[in-house]
Amino acid sequence: MSSSSSSSKTIRRLEVQSPVPADIDIANSVEPLHVSEIAQSLNLSSTHYDLYGKYKAKVLLSVLDEVEGVGDGYYVVVGGITPTPLGEGKSTTTVGLCQALGAFLDKKVVTCLRQPSQGPTFGIKGGAAGGGYSQVIPMDEFNLHLTGDIHAITAANNLLAAAIDTRVFHESTQSDKALLNRLCPPNKQGKRSFADIMFRRLKKLNISKDNPDDLSPEEVKRFARLDIDPESITWRRVMDVNDRFLRKITIGQGPDEKGMVRETGFDISVASEIMAVLALMTSLADMRERLGKMVIGNSKAGEPITADDLGVGGALTVLMKDAINPTLMQTLEGTPVLVHAGPFANIAHGNSSIVADKIGLKLVGPGGFVVTEAGFGADIGTEKFMNIKCRYSGLTPQCAVIVATVRALKMHGGGPEVVAGKPLDHAYLTENVALVEVGCVNLAKHISNTRAYGVNVVVAVNMFSTDSEAELKAVRNASLAAGAFDAVICTHHAHGGKGAIDLGIAVQKACENVTETLKFLYPLECSIKEKIEAIANSYGASGVEYSEQAEKQIEMYSKQGFSSLPICMAKTQYSFSHIPSQKGAPVGFVLPIRDVRASIGAGFIYPLVGTMSTMPGLPTRPCFFEIDVDTATRKVRGLS
Amino acid sequence: MSSSSSSSKTIRRLEVQSPVPADIDIANSVEPLHVSEIAQSLNLSSTHYDLYGKYKAKVLLSVLDEVEGVGDGYYVVVGGITPTPLGEGKSTTTVGLCQALGAFLDKKVVTCLRQPSQGPTFGIKGGAAGGGYSQVIPMDEFNLHLTGDIHAITAANNLLAAAIDTRVFHESTQSDKALLNRLCPPNKQGKRSFADIMFRRLKKLNISKDNPDDLSPEEVKRFARLDIDPESITWRRVMDVNDRFLRKITIGQGPDEKGMVRETGFDISVASEIMAVLALMTSLADMRERLGKMVIGNSKAGEPITADDLGVGGALTVLMKDAINPTLMQTLEGTPVLVHAGPFANIAHGNSSIVADKIGLKLVGPGGFVVTEAGFGADIGTEKFMNIKCRYSGLTPQCAVIVATVRALKMHGGGPEVVAGKPLDHAYLTENVALVEVGCVNLAKHISNTRAYGVNVVVAVNMFSTDSEAELKAVRNASLAAGAFDAVICTHHAHGGKGAIDLGIAVQKACENVTETLKFLYPLECSIKEKIEAIANSYGASGVEYSEQAEKQIEMYSKQGFSSLPICMAKTQYSFSHIPSQKGAPVGFVLPIRDVRASIGAGFIYPLVGTMSTMPGLPTRPCFFEIDVDTATRKVRGLS
Repeated sequence: MSSSSSSSKTIRRLEVQSPVPADIDIANSVEPLHVSEIAQSLNLSSTHYDLYGKYKAKVLLSVLDEVEGVGDGYYVVVGGITPTPLGEGKSTTTVGLCQALGAFLDKKVVTCLRQPSQGPTFGIKGGAAGGGYSQVIPMDEFNLHLTGDIHAITAANNLLAAAIDTRVFHESTQSDKALLNRLCPPNKQGKRSFADIMFRRLKKLNISKDNPDDLSPEEVKRFARLDIDPESITWRRVMDVNDRFLRKITIGQGPDEKGMVRETGFDISVASEIMAVLALMTSLADMRERLGKMVIGNSKAGEPITADDLGVGGALTVLMKDAINPTLMQTLEGTPVLVHAGPFANIAHGNSSIVADKIGLKLVGPGGFVVTEAGFGADIGTEKFMNIKCRYSGLTPQCAVIVATVRALKMHGGGPEVVAGKPLDHAYLTENVALVEVGCVNLAKHISNTRAYGVNVVVAVNMFSTDSEAELKAVRNASLAAGAFDAVICTHHAHGGKGAIDLGIAVQKACENVTETLKFLYPLECSIKEKIEAIANSYGASGVEYSEQAEKQIEMYSKQGFSSLPICMAKTQYSFSHIPSQKGAPVGFVLPIRDVRASIGAGFIYPLVGTMSTMPGLPTRPCFFEIDVDTATRKVRGLS
Repeated sequence: MSSSSSSSKTIRRLEVQSPVPADIDIANSVEPLHVSEIAQSLNLSSTHYDLYGKYKAKVLLSVLDEVEGVGDGYYVVVGGITPTPLGEGKSTTTVGLCQALGAFLDKKVVTCLRQPSQGPTFGIKGGAAGGGYSQVIPMDEFNLHLTGDIHAITAANNLLAAAIDTRVFHESTQSDKALLNRLCPPNKQGKRSFADIMFRRLKKLNISKDNPDDLSPEEVKRFARLDIDPESITWRRVMDVNDRFLRKITIGQGPDEKGMVRETGFDISVASEIMAVLALMTSLADMRERLGKMVIGNSKAGEPITADDLGVGGALTVLMKDAINPTLMQTLEGTPVLVHAGPFANIAHGNSSIVADKIGLKLVGPGGFVVTEAGFGADIGTEKFMNIKCRYSGLTPQCAVIVATVRALKMHGGGPEVVAGKPLDHAYLTENVALVEVGCVNLAKHISNTRAYGVNVVVAVNMFSTDSEAELKAVRNASLAAGAFDAVICTHHAHGGKGAIDLGIAVQKACENVTETLKFLYPLECSIKEKIEAIANSYGASGVEYSEQAEKQIEMYSKQGFSSLPICMAKTQYSFSHIPSQKGAPVGFVLPIRDVRASIGAGFIYPLVGTMSTMPGLPTRPCFFEIDVDTATRKVRGLS
């Protein structure tokens, strides 16, 4: 192994044990490097980042302008086949692949991961730092608080929510004139003026006056009275806690709120549109504009009302100004990781941030690698990566990895239901090549769908100890037959980067041998329905069925001028279709669109295929029962 | 000025302008030092703190054990007279005094301040970093997010809230046996066991078995069924936003929550008991115990139910493990500041943290000064500082500063009502010595009340340009007559530390000339009512009147074994009495106790004198209209 790349100075060799210990024990067994060493391995100087303790640093967005670069590295996206409820190891594979590239193949590499929600960490799922010998460390810092980005999102989201209800309240008790007087109070000299942000609304209303006293009564009404229809408010409050009792609530029941009650609810913070904005913005100025144009509902006349109409777009940006910078961490083997954003993978696009990927691509430079993960199966995560994220970023991936497991393929081949928390059926623990072969229809469809974007596809088979040679061979054969560039067996969970060396080599070759250019699934100019139908078609649907509500919303968004946005399908991750029990590669189904919503600031329309829960709950015995601090060593115990 | 103290290396001289520019303009006109230089001035090595960007660092609690120290510095608390709604400049005086001590009198000094809530920053009040030429910088970082402590409190508070409702929900649908099975699930070998945290509940129940299978049916019921009375739940959710529509809400209206609706509400985050715990804990282990014993309500049988009964005390501690470390910042003149905790000053004790004060006292050492602020007037802040905070910390102050303004004294002398946002009456802008002299009765009572603790009192007259010589002289005379050690005119708002040199000298002399020992207002052993009456007596009340509800609660807390806790009065800050309009030093009133509540984890009982709002609202034009980021310079605009 040569040590020519500067990153190799941070490389740490793992002594792996068998059987693989618990994640937290592996994570705690390694002493992380000071993050400034990780930064140095990427040629970052201390002016390029802010430390947050010893093991985390925020890389400042300004490096995109300040760091000299000769070009970008290779861009690799990791998706998966349609998963079982246990997950097929996509994050773990992402980390393992990078450990292989950085620690064994002497490549410059940056892993781009999403920041996990704290809710599931204390609930059922546990953390999201990878697993086994492929993890981001310190895993407790990765899973909790990190550098406060989700907290900033919560604060901004809820400031906007408070601004909405308070504005409706104040408008209900004041005349147009009184409202204007309050909004533009006189200064000590008795002169009124507009706040800077008010000129955004004035411009939207085509009012070009710059003195509040010059407005006509009609203009006063149009400017000062947003006239929000309470029924139309789509903006909900958020909290980074699994609190099911907040899913549907009634607010405003205090005596001072004068009976202005309203039904609404809380989502988990990562479901906030502001999270999607963070993931899709490309600069501070771009974020400012996106936050300001987020639509929270309509006026009674049907006009969309934005955060800037409420005067709060600037304050939201101030709350988010540090969250804009990705967080640098490290893998168990000392390679760099950028953690940034973590939007929901159904009601949002489920990918980490554009700016983290861009910074990574610049820092690794030509011949280096940025590996970024896309949530859920490739039908959802990779599709949105291509058609939403790459469309906004202008970046082009060279290779898409699809993570598969023999377990999930057996399920797609007709194996019994897999249920989290229950023992696996015998079928999953003993050889059954036929089941695997039938199930590969799911993998094949993900491969051909992903190939259609013009990228090379490498299948990573995340190997379990119960997998047989014949089963693994069947997956490899099916992959190549379906058009994969390569298909590789990986053991990074048990062996760290060493277990993903073949995958790293395959990914490198795939990147070096691109023959096509990036092709989107649909052009932005076509109608909302045409775009929905293009995606449904890629799922295998024979048609699309719209509810009355969906039709109404599509018509409204088209009228409001939002029809040129990309589409973000909110669909189950457990099937290509809308029915979770339909495994394999179902065809001939009609995809039902129950409702259509929009994240105008983030920049997409999201049709709802079925009901999406945006606030998880806690079980009778949540993870938190195990979690504590050893007050003597200050180490966290029980995180999984 | 000698430069013998190492802190003098960080001292920066201000070029003051007249008239005094806006706070944000002064703050932005100074380039802060890297916080590692501030740390170095306190002889902290880089292992003693974690950087959070360039201008903030968390000082690790371990310095209390690790730093060699020969003894503590002087301990000074800053209180005030009964204020007008405009505030009399207590934070500004605290900062100005420290700038004088550190930058002009060559003393080692640490300022201890509370972290402000973000809610009012975007609402009416604006920030809380001091004002004029006496501020903490960078003021935007001070006022927003800081190092995430309040966000951690929000997360912990709301995890506990979710745990409560979810537990009630799961208990309502499961038998005792099913509950136990869920709480203690079998491992792969089919063996059940208790989680570590469950032994806390078992111990409380006097059950000494360590195998779930050995519990008798009666023991299963007692252990597994908390049987929380929903009506008794006092734990509310919190949010660091002024969101009045959350004051009273109905939760659980989603279809999956099966009609288990309940009325509750949100407080602003700084009102969380966890904030009071943070302010009063003395170590990580102490915090773990306090968080675990927080009482959230009662069982139907009337037993208090704690966070540890719910299995979540450890997880709360994990969420708070970084918040335990105070944040180091700097004043405009380069002296060090520790920002930590910020509990409400009525329903909680309104003082910054014990550990910040302790760290400060050790770092400044003998001859140095720690200046810490106590919220509201001395009847509230200083009283709680002495009887609650010093009781738990074991620390003894040498000097109490009482901040007074001619404006407020005129109000106490019978001047017209002072209303925030409205122009001041003529009486406050022209000389009126008689009004001041009459008003000094309020100051005199604060002085004698504070003297009674055995500390020397220095009055700081925060001078305004409209104050006359004769008025200022009247205040000084009245102060000395009431037993103050000294009374000094200060102009730190206009001149920075230079304007508080005389105050610094007076404080130094007061500290060097202590003749008494610390005396509390009441012993802990007396009854809840005796303690309430001792405090009421100090206000000037002739008696106390308890509502039926208050009587019931006092009886319950006494029965539950909580009667030896100190008392934290929730009273208006605008009068010694419970009636805000009673200025001066009213006597002969009967103090009504409407209700009595308890923060068992924090460690106090709080009687409610009148109604306390724990969730502010937003006006028609909140501060946020002015707040934005300059996307070119990345500077925050419009913060006040």
